[in-house]
Amino acid sequence: DQQIDLAVVAGDGIGGEVVEQGLRALEAALAPSGTKVVTTEFDLGARRWHATGETLTDEDLERIRQHDAILLGAIGDPSVPSGVLERGLLLKLRFTLDHYVNLRPSRLFEGVTSPLADPGEIDFVVVREGTEGPYTGNGGALRVGTPAEVATEVSVNTAFGVERVVRDAFARAAQRERKHLTLVHKHNVLVHAGHLWRRTVEAVNAEFPEVTTDYLHVDAATIFLTTNPSRFDVIVTDNLFGDILTDQAAAITGGIGLAASANINPDRTAPSMFEPVHGSAPDIAGTGKADPTATILSVGLLLDHLGRADEAAAVQAAVAADIAERATSSSVRNTAQIGADIAARVAG
Amino acid sequence: DQQIDLAVVAGDGIGGEVVEQGLRALEAALAPSGTKVVTTEFDLGARRWHATGETLTDEDLERIRQHDAILLGAIGDPSVPSGVLERGLLLKLRFTLDHYVNLRPSRLFEGVTSPLADPGEIDFVVVREGTEGPYTGNGGALRVGTPAEVATEVSVNTAFGVERVVRDAFARAAQRERKHLTLVHKHNVLVHAGHLWRRTVEAVNAEFPEVTTDYLHVDAATIFLTTNPSRFDVIVTDNLFGDILTDQAAAITGGIGLAASANINPDRTAPSMFEPVHGSAPDIAGTGKADPTATILSVGLLLDHLGRADEAAAVQAAVAADIAERATSSSVRNTAQIGADIAARVAG
Ligand SMILES: CC(C)[C@H](C(=O)O)[C@@H](O)C(=O)O
Ligand SMILES: CC(C)[C@H](C(=O)O)[C@@H](O)C(=O)O
Repeated sequence: DQQIDLAVVAGDGIGGEVVEQGLRALEAALAPSGTKVVTTEFDLGARRWHATGETLTDEDLERIRQHDAILLGAIGDPSVPSGVLERGLLLKLRFTLDHYVNLRPSRLFEGVTSPLADPGEIDFVVVREGTEGPYTGNGGALRVGTPAEVATEVSVNTAFGVERVVRDAFARAAQRERKHLTLVHKHNVLVHAGHLWRRTVEAVNAEFPEVTTDYLHVDAATIFLTTNPSRFDVIVTDNLFGDILTDQAAAITGGIGLAASANINPDRTAPSMFEPVHGSAPDIAGTGKADPTATILSVGLLLDHLGRADEAAAVQAAVAADIAERATSSSVRNTAQIGADIAARVAG
Repeated sequence: DQQIDLAVVAGDGIGGEVVEQGLRALEAALAPSGTKVVTTEFDLGARRWHATGETLTDEDLERIRQHDAILLGAIGDPSVPSGVLERGLLLKLRFTLDHYVNLRPSRLFEGVTSPLADPGEIDFVVVREGTEGPYTGNGGALRVGTPAEVATEVSVNTAFGVERVVRDAFARAAQRERKHLTLVHKHNVLVHAGHLWRRTVEAVNAEFPEVTTDYLHVDAATIFLTTNPSRFDVIVTDNLFGDILTDQAAAITGGIGLAASANINPDRTAPSMFEPVHGSAPDIAGTGKADPTATILSVGLLLDHLGRADEAAAVQAAVAADIAERATSSSVRNTAQIGADIAARVAG
């Protein structure tokens, strides 16, 4: 391809600032090959909602579908009722575009001080299911605001949905050195969903006999992420557990400023979406304090997904080198300076 | 009271070993006042299930109800299908006896090395809802074992259930020095349940104007438990989030060997139940390696619940002193030795 058509959703808060630096790294990575990045910006998020009441229209979706990939900054603003943008925009993108693999690598880069006293080597990836579980929006509320109110949230899990993400996780594990897969769930309490996940892992393991597996309850997983994160290679888990564990995983590897994610549609029936794990951080928006590293690493995942393994590696290496230098330097850089330095290394 | 009638459920694995030491501390604490502890042992858990197919009969429940409190070791064994004992016994006790406050204090004792590099002072308590949420057993599965399988898990939340636990959490916060309450949920995704929890915290706050509150999404809470656990005073949260966060909380304060819990029925319509957070650990059962400290601390919570504040404080102080000495001693003690040392300190 001599051109990549990219849908850009800057979103809210610091979203625009980090996306700008992500694009810089992307362009730097693709320049040598002559590949052009053609971006289309989509005005989605709090501003649009306040102005029009719209979160994501069918027309928006139709236009987004025409692109090779989506780069997303961050969604959410305190001026909008909680859930409106998260469910009406961010989750709607993930669900409608069938991003059933939410890929979140965790790596403790050299030079990063972990809040753990003895972190050991940390290099695992969480394959979080992205289109089912408690995120489906099933459930509801009755007699709201009265003493008789009942509110339910339904976690929906299907063999179809669990099997495809488990197979993807096995395939990733098979590509890695340690070839180990940990299923995280809570099957001693959530017996129906838990047993479906467990049976599926057992069944799909037959296709990947070289991959070893184990199982942890989600509560125990938070313990091991604290005491022995080195034990993890690939984690596969549901939408909500994945949400929780990947924030904890970000914390132990230096914070959400460094945590990348990819919302992948492995069947390529729609564009995949790349975004930092962090949110819109309205408190620091416009101050230049946002760390664009997570977004730049997400651009690395984007390049990988588009079959640009070399360029992806260049971005990843540039980030690693930049981070390594942070440990030895006392200078405080703003968002744009970090982005410029990393882009220069990518070009480099 | 010159007598405490205690139902003892040793349960599985290391349950019996830790309960024995818990009872020792209890007796030592009550001896000075002349209060007798009369125990009734209930044969519940894997052995009973294998022998009879029973987990917890109506008759068991009726007999347990006759007691002032329950001391429980641990439930669960790999020889029993996952969920059978957890739901049919442990959760059945919590639900039937209306243990709607699952109280889990987290404190970094002097002398304990936290896996966090810079833990700061850690002294908070999680008030985990115990009778609702995703733990109700609502949900089910359709077409099990076929490619068309659907499995659901329903989180049920009622104004009745949320309000009573939130009020309890506020009352506890009001008794503490910092008087701060953090609600943990995920209201940007689980909007129905989340908004019920949020509205309830706002409403009940009017009864406790001296308590300050804030809110964290559960994913963000795992970050702060890693980077700044000192910020927490009282956390109130649902059954599943509470399960997850209290294991992480145990990890940062030295492990589940030290983590106590109380399943409280604040209305005293049935006995409350005291148990360590850890499980049955079948791998170390019978080796003397189990740390009884969590159970002994749970006995402290039991004494507190029965209005024995001085005796509770004595147990807590004895444990603190024992733990402080662990840091300076190189001797490895077994379960019974730790229990004996703490009981001796309690006896004073
Ligand atoms: C903003 C929110 C809806 C989202 C999620 O829960 O998935 C975020 O926490 C994430 O992890 O990407
Ligand atoms: C054993 C299991 C059912 C239980 C729970 O999930 O509540 C345990 O993890 C706990 O925290 O007490």
